[in-house]
Amino acid sequence: MPNTPVPITEPIGYYLSGYTDGEGSFCVSFSPRSKLTIKLEVRPSFSVSQNGDRQEILLLFQQYFGCGTIRKNPNDRTFKYEVRSIKNLVEKVIPFFCKYPLLSSKKNDFAVFVKICNMIYEGKHLQREFLKEIVEFSYQMNGLGARRYHKKELLAVLR
Amino acid sequence: MPNTPVPITEPIGYYLSGYTDGEGSFCVSFSPRSKLTIKLEVRPSFSVSQNGDRQEILLLFQQYFGCGTIRKNPNDRTFKYEVRSIKNLVEKVIPFFCKYPLLSSKKNDFAVFVKICNMIYEGKHLQREFLKEIVEFSYQMNGLGARRYHKKELLAVLR
Repeated sequence: MPNTPVPITEPIGYYLSGYTDGEGSFCVSFSPRSKLTIKLEVRPSFSVSQNGDRQEILLLFQQYFGCGTIRKNPNDRTFKYEVRSIKNLVEKVIPFFCKYPLLSSKKNDFAVFVKICNMIYEGKHLQREFLKEIVEFSYQMNGLGARRYHKKELLAVLR
Repeated sequence: MPNTPVPITEPIGYYLSGYTDGEGSFCVSFSPRSKLTIKLEVRPSFSVSQNGDRQEILLLFQQYFGCGTIRKNPNDRTFKYEVRSIKNLVEKVIPFFCKYPLLSSKKNDFAVFVKICNMIYEGKHLQREFLKEIVEFSYQMNGLGARRYHKKELLAVLR
């Protein structure tokens, strides 16, 4: 029942925050899209990965956040909980981590992620100047993993 | 100051429990020792590993648990927080996770770990029959990682 979240008590809140500091990821990815007026799509996401044998924690995230999907990674034995909807990110995920803050340096990624999500929520990613800012911000994040594009390539698309 | 633990509040307690469910490990390893009367050494440990860039969480474990060491893994960029002393495991680590329980299936490993640590704390690992039980119990744990010995080999040492 992802749309009727279970109320979050303090114990579960801090627990999920600790779990996220270990296994969670805030990510902003980009794809050049020739059909878009602005030519570049930006996609923020929050995800938590886990081996299949401990998938139950991903169900907890889905229950308590009241949003997001769980999918099997076709390449290995892991499962991934993921929230991609900007509405759910801004209205559910971000307020959660403001209330139950991360303690590792992942909190720096989170701070940048909040700036970017708020800009997207306000529709600023549809304006070239702001989208350039979003690209710049995203490259301050550690947690992007394997970046598919160099920053220069993305900014070139926006020229 | 590993010997003067910082008092554990509920927020940090649940946070560290969540972090452990993601990144922690309860392990019982064995080494044949011809010089020991009983021929087999048993070593329980609790550990949490982390990339060097987020080593600060390991310091939190050390601060709040008031015990344990942090070491760099010579093979990669990770650091490891580890508690090996049976006294600290029984008096500090185990009571912590009883108060702030794990929620993933790792709690099953923890339950077995508690049984084994209590037996060692009582000196039962020095008696062949109990040490055999400890070996049997330890093979109920998922989290042993790469086991160095087959159960049969260990039990053979005790014959």
